Amino acid sequence: MKIEEIARLLGGKHQGQGNREIRGVAGLESAGAEELTFAEGGRALERASRSAAGCILVPAGASLPGRTTIEVSHPKLALIRAAAALLPARKVEPAIHPTAVVSPSARLSPSVHVGAHVVIEEEVIVREGTALGAGVFLGRGVEIGSDSILYPKVTVYPGARIGSRVTIHAGSVIGSDGFGYVFAEGRHHKFPQLGQVIIEDDVEIGSNTTIDRGSLGNTVIGQGSKIDNLVQIAHNVRIGRHCVIAAQTGISGSVEIGDYVVMGGQVGVGDRVRIEDQAVIGAQAGIPTGKVVRRGSAMWGTPARPMSEFKKTYAQLTNLPNLAKKVNELSRRVAAQSKSG
Amino acid sequence: MKIEEIARLLGGKHQGQGNREIRGVAGLESAGAEELTFAEGGRALERASRSAAGCILVPAGASLPGRTTIEVSHPKLALIRAAAALLPARKVEPAIHPTAVVSPSARLSPSVHVGAHVVIEEEVIVREGTALGAGVFLGRGVEIGSDSILYPKVTVYPGARIGSRVTIHAGSVIGSDGFGYVFAEGRHHKFPQLGQVIIEDDVEIGSNTTIDRGSLGNTVIGQGSKIDNLVQIAHNVRIGRHCVIAAQTGISGSVEIGDYVVMGGQVGVGDRVRIEDQAVIGAQAGIPTGKVVRRGSAMWGTPARPMSEFKKTYAQLTNLPNLAKKVNELSRRVAAQSKSG
Amino acid sequence: MKIEEIARLLGGKHQGQGNREIRGVAGLESAGAEELTFAEGGRALERASRSAAGCILVPAGASLPGRTTIEVSHPKLALIRAAAALLPARKVEPAIHPTAVVSPSARLSPSVHVGAHVVIEEEVIVREGTALGAGVFLGRGVEIGSDSILYPKVTVYPGARIGSRVTIHAGSVIGSDGFGYVFAEGRHHKFPQLGQVIIEDDVEIGSNTTIDRGSLGNTVIGQGSKIDNLVQIAHNVRIGRHCVIAAQTGISGSVEIGDYVVMGGQVGVGDRVRIEDQAVIGAQAGIPTGKVVRRGSAMWGTPARPMSEFKKTYAQLTNLPNLAKKVNELSRRVAAQSKSG
Repeated sequence: MKIEEIARLLGGKHQGQGNREIRGVAGLESAGAEELTFAEGGRALERASRSAAGCILVPAGASLPGRTTIEVSHPKLALIRAAAALLPARKVEPAIHPTAVVSPSARLSPSVHVGAHVVIEEEVIVREGTALGAGVFLGRGVEIGSDSILYPKVTVYPGARIGSRVTIHAGSVIGSDGFGYVFAEGRHHKFPQLGQVIIEDDVEIGSNTTIDRGSLGNTVIGQGSKIDNLVQIAHNVRIGRHCVIAAQTGISGSVEIGDYVVMGGQVGVGDRVRIEDQAVIGAQAGIPTGKVVRRGSAMWGTPARPMSEFKKTYAQLTNLPNLAKKVNELSRRVAAQSKSG
Repeated sequence: MKIEEIARLLGGKHQGQGNREIRGVAGLESAGAEELTFAEGGRALERASRSAAGCILVPAGASLPGRTTIEVSHPKLALIRAAAALLPARKVEPAIHPTAVVSPSARLSPSVHVGAHVVIEEEVIVREGTALGAGVFLGRGVEIGSDSILYPKVTVYPGARIGSRVTIHAGSVIGSDGFGYVFAEGRHHKFPQLGQVIIEDDVEIGSNTTIDRGSLGNTVIGQGSKIDNLVQIAHNVRIGRHCVIAAQTGISGSVEIGDYVVMGGQVGVGDRVRIEDQAVIGAQAGIPTGKVVRRGSAMWGTPARPMSEFKKTYAQLTNLPNLAKKVNELSRRVAAQSKSG
Repeated sequence: MKIEEIARLLGGKHQGQGNREIRGVAGLESAGAEELTFAEGGRALERASRSAAGCILVPAGASLPGRTTIEVSHPKLALIRAAAALLPARKVEPAIHPTAVVSPSARLSPSVHVGAHVVIEEEVIVREGTALGAGVFLGRGVEIGSDSILYPKVTVYPGARIGSRVTIHAGSVIGSDGFGYVFAEGRHHKFPQLGQVIIEDDVEIGSNTTIDRGSLGNTVIGQGSKIDNLVQIAHNVRIGRHCVIAAQTGISGSVEIGDYVVMGGQVGVGDRVRIEDQAVIGAQAGIPTGKVVRRGSAMWGTPARPMSEFKKTYAQLTNLPNLAKKVNELSRRVAAQSKSG
């Protein structure tokens, strides 16, 4: 693709050798003469001036004398778009590997790809263009929409429903039993785990993540939400649309999360918490059982407090030994005054 | 099952249409005319009065005018029992899938179910009624008792011993090497990991959990203990009976845990900690290396302190910026008095 | 092996029955008459005096009257060496299981072991003596060096490069997509994840750990580093040589870690952090985005501070309710003096 074509595609203005050929994308440091890269922010633009990249996407108004650039309003987003045009999309080869075990009652679109050693149980439905990596397991009655991809060894328990354009990375488990027990007579009695997992369209789930089925209701992951690796999502959790949940975060039973919520890594959320739209939870924060996090608020710490309060407290915290010293000195002085008085 | 039959089974008193037919269980909100549900506590009872459920299990003495109810001493436990009677138990079909790879020296009860692509190595023993999901791996010499279920892709390393009525969810790994090294001559030398994992009867383990073998001794999970998803249990850990360990908790090497211990999610326990019977550890708490947590005590925070102390400190913590201001004011006043004195 | 032979091998001095036969190693408590064990430190030496072990490795100068011992400079390290001599090394049987699916374009050394249900895609290279456990998946173009072992159900995405003498435990995922999105127009756009994972020689990785591929660059795990179970390593992370990273730690995108760094369990490291050589990070610590941890420093807490400062602050923290009381008293006294003055 010529640089002037890329500029046209992105609606950007190019500077330099517009008819040079670009064949791929790369990072600022590693990009070569046939590769496109991007630079945002002062430091990146400085490094960009020394880049060997064939073309650099830069913010509108930025100039890199002597380099071939395309000015765009959002260079990183522009790179995503250019990459989509430059790089061949993953082709899904319609095929069922001879080692796959597929129930005769399963209904697979002819355009589905089924890898080696996949197991598909009774009454499963998989729609057009979906790819199942090697060793994927789909339990009885699972439904998957179109153009989704399940990487190797994903396990989907019976009855789960997965939408279209969903990506699930290797080793993730969808629909295992929730962790619900009633303690009586000296032992733990398991509560029925009869609900489903529903994963809406355009969701992406990382590797080795676990999402439990609902106990009596359902566990729901809303459209467009992105979940990282090793995340735990318990029974009856409802996550809204376009949320981002970073690695190793754990969400306890019956938590409700709104839309556009952002959670850092290793966050812990207690039972029955409600997190409203657009809230932001800092990494490693712990939200206690039953708490409500208000729309748009930012929280940090365990137990979590508003971010600004946490930071203020924290600043005082590091100063605590000094404060204690000061109080001791004051005590002495007051005692001395008291005597002399 | 008729409501009056359910009432008889539970030893409860029914109100309303005793000869109505119930076919399943459901949540308060979703239950229909042929479903049983339960309500405990004021808010739930209030919602129950608007429920469309065919029958509602309520605490003794509670009345819901116009609804069909059964009074029982423990509604949630009663629901578990009713569900066991109402819902068909999982049937284990005795069969060995033709794609399974089973060593001729393995001894499997004829009533065992072996799913597709299971691998069973030499001298494995699996007793009656146990089910092995698709892709399960049992290493040489593994023993599993009766009526256990291993969901798809559980890996059991050679030599592990698993009891009866044990459930292990998908992707969990039992018996991988402990993380033990000796640093010398500029590199880490691996300590021998020769011990076993022993999982006693009635244990349930979630999905993608990891339990390491002992180094020279054994790792033991005591009878009736319940372990959630993504939990890490290191080499030589000994967990007692009827413990509950929530998701993403990590337990370091040689930790000893008593009976009836309850641990929240994302707890971290350092090497050689001892946690005595009935202790409760709050979510995200961190127990430092070597610490002893006394019988029945409750701990929270990192490093963990007694729960009540933690809460007191925490209350002061949020007040810390005010305290600092107060000290500064006092300083000024004392200095002023000093001058004027 | 005779005790005197073991003593010679270890360069140690034996006491007692030098011509007794030793057949294995065991812990202090469980070792029998034909087993070797070790004791380091006063308490262990005391317990050693009651051990039934055939021979005990003790520090130079230690004496256990009536017991057969070998004095060595580092008993635990000596045990590792003795175990290597006493215990038969794992034999890799060169074989490709008939249920494995191996691309004709893959190049496997004739000495490689390929377990049941393994899948090897196009152009994979596996060198001599490497063993692939049941159900391992190697994506297109993966390269693995010699004498490595991948336990059952490890997934290696296309293009990853793994060195020699590398161990990867069951269920780990190497090379899944990084978690990188750009938010625009009300949804998250996925950033290209085109880089690789490079795992150098002598690395050990635990079970169910996840290591993401680089986005535009590579994710690199340096030679001799040891990574525990359930660890998350994000895209573009670079870990140096001989690091130790304990279970459930999470390392965010583009973090750089030097050599000989030690990290406890459940540590969280934010984006673009730099941790220099020989730093030590305490369990559950949280290193905020962009922070630099200096060479050899020790950090703890969230947000992490120098260990000694954290401990000082922490001591004050538990004393905080007292401090608050003291300040209130002082206030009263100062107010009283003020009036009386």
